[in-house]
Amino acid sequence: MTNAPETSAEDSLIARYFKPLATDPGAFGLVDDAAVLSSSGDDIVVTTDAVVEGVHYLAGDPPDTIARKALRVNLSDLAAKGAVPAGFVLTLALRSKEDAWLRPFADALGEDATTFACPLLGGDTVSTPGPQMISITAFGRVPAGRMVGRTGARPGDRITVTGTIGDAALGLDVLKDGVAAQALAADALAREMLVSRYRVPQPRNVLARAVRDHATAAMDVSDGLAGDLAKLCAASNVSASVELSRVPLSAAASGLLSRNVICVEALLAGGDDYEVLCTVPDAQCDALIAAGLAAGVVVTAIGTIVAGAEPPCFLDGQGQPLVLKRLSYSHF
Amino acid sequence: MTNAPETSAEDSLIARYFKPLATDPGAFGLVDDAAVLSSSGDDIVVTTDAVVEGVHYLAGDPPDTIARKALRVNLSDLAAKGAVPAGFVLTLALRSKEDAWLRPFADALGEDATTFACPLLGGDTVSTPGPQMISITAFGRVPAGRMVGRTGARPGDRITVTGTIGDAALGLDVLKDGVAAQALAADALAREMLVSRYRVPQPRNVLARAVRDHATAAMDVSDGLAGDLAKLCAASNVSASVELSRVPLSAAASGLLSRNVICVEALLAGGDDYEVLCTVPDAQCDALIAAGLAAGVVVTAIGTIVAGAEPPCFLDGQGQPLVLKRLSYSHF
Repeated sequence: MTNAPETSAEDSLIARYFKPLATDPGAFGLVDDAAVLSSSGDDIVVTTDAVVEGVHYLAGDPPDTIARKALRVNLSDLAAKGAVPAGFVLTLALRSKEDAWLRPFADALGEDATTFACPLLGGDTVSTPGPQMISITAFGRVPAGRMVGRTGARPGDRITVTGTIGDAALGLDVLKDGVAAQALAADALAREMLVSRYRVPQPRNVLARAVRDHATAAMDVSDGLAGDLAKLCAASNVSASVELSRVPLSAAASGLLSRNVICVEALLAGGDDYEVLCTVPDAQCDALIAAGLAAGVVVTAIGTIVAGAEPPCFLDGQGQPLVLKRLSYSHF
Repeated sequence: MTNAPETSAEDSLIARYFKPLATDPGAFGLVDDAAVLSSSGDDIVVTTDAVVEGVHYLAGDPPDTIARKALRVNLSDLAAKGAVPAGFVLTLALRSKEDAWLRPFADALGEDATTFACPLLGGDTVSTPGPQMISITAFGRVPAGRMVGRTGARPGDRITVTGTIGDAALGLDVLKDGVAAQALAADALAREMLVSRYRVPQPRNVLARAVRDHATAAMDVSDGLAGDLAKLCAASNVSASVELSRVPLSAAASGLLSRNVICVEALLAGGDDYEVLCTVPDAQCDALIAAGLAAGVVVTAIGTIVAGAEPPCFLDGQGQPLVLKRLSYSHF
């Protein structure tokens, strides 16, 4: 780098920590202001999600988990749209440039970029006196016209969801020493599992192809299953009927629920699940579930799309509708 | 919206202020988590830049100018890459959702989106207890393989820059009641011009085609001409010789310089110019300047690319090299 003047500490920070992540030729090794995504006729799917210290993660969270969460919440969107990851750009608003924070952050981000085949394409690093914030815009590819939207759900479609619901909200409760933390005081493994679900989402990118092949509509569950299903139904001009007993819960969540430590609303309206919610024609539901099994992801049918304009209905074991006071997490 | 449950205040904020800006069919009216950029065989150029309250704009700046600056700093990158704007995604980290701030912000953003044919494709709105931040990722299109990079400058190429240099840095000085503010106490028009240059950049998107047709390398000048030219030279493995007397200055900047109120370094290393720096083969320099004139943008040749690994050299009226203590703005 004989003629690379040390014109700014920002440049050296980028070169030191983030250049190794920019493995795609379109990233130009981060020496340019811009990156190139070649299209080859595919549509480019674009999604953007930010995580803010104190809002989406806690100030004391390990930097490696913060990095993974920042990228994975976007990967989760791509999975739900049936898109194959193509890369991402990163805006990092930092208070300081301590190596003790940046090194594990960048290393974990690089590991995830490799794992999910989603290389860093560019970014911007700015200083902030306030809470740190990581904003990521991620790109995926789908064959032209094949992005899975929210508007295609039709009456009769089955409603499916991946993984388990509500664990991340319980994980946050554990970190905040809430009711779940106290009830699980003797169960370190369960506490750890729940915290991990909050800190490090497991985006379902292995299911992207199956989502594209089978889903009439899909989205990722990030703000609570109840609210997100309501949004999908509203976009599709339909309603839904969900059997509460079929909503997949972890053993920990199930136990807390049966002991009345928490109410089901805490699970249905809790945020940060990052699972994929799909509607599929009845005849294709088994194929989607099988594709999930083959990929190591449990897909569970939880209900049916019905005609109507009412919010989705959650039925308890007696077939009675549950009245939810709160559907999802809101920032305001 | 009979069956659109009011699931979150965030959704209603987005619907109220930002849905009208989502005019592209690929934005799906902001009802989806993701947007689609169809490619038609073009390359998609991606650039991302954030503006932070207290860093890139002042807390008291009018919200309409903040919106314009946030988008235009990205449009400026697209212009310098020879790309035609295709759309943008927005991450807004807000402390509050006051209509008095959001209304003029969204209206101005929408006006600029229309002016520059760069529609809103999607975004994320989060709450922050800290300073507000607007992070934009913008997309442009170029014919496959035709993005103008930083690495193509060759010895003998002429160095050109659009507009005038240093005004924005002086505008910030005026807003902070610095030396320029005092020296221009009696000249309200000059103060206003300089402040406007700081608050509302004029991205040179009308020149994108000419940049693509003529430039061997290009970038926008955002962190100071001296530092940015040094970056371009480093990326191209060349050096540069610039005649200070040719660097285009506004009458206000020129006057302050001749009265010794400021030194030339304040102009060359000041940030926020958002002009386009191009290197062009000597034989094409006139064509680029003519294209600028036709588009209403003054393009000025300020020097020549030379072989070597030294930082760019700025020569004064006596042909003596200027020693710059500082090349550009740095966040850290």
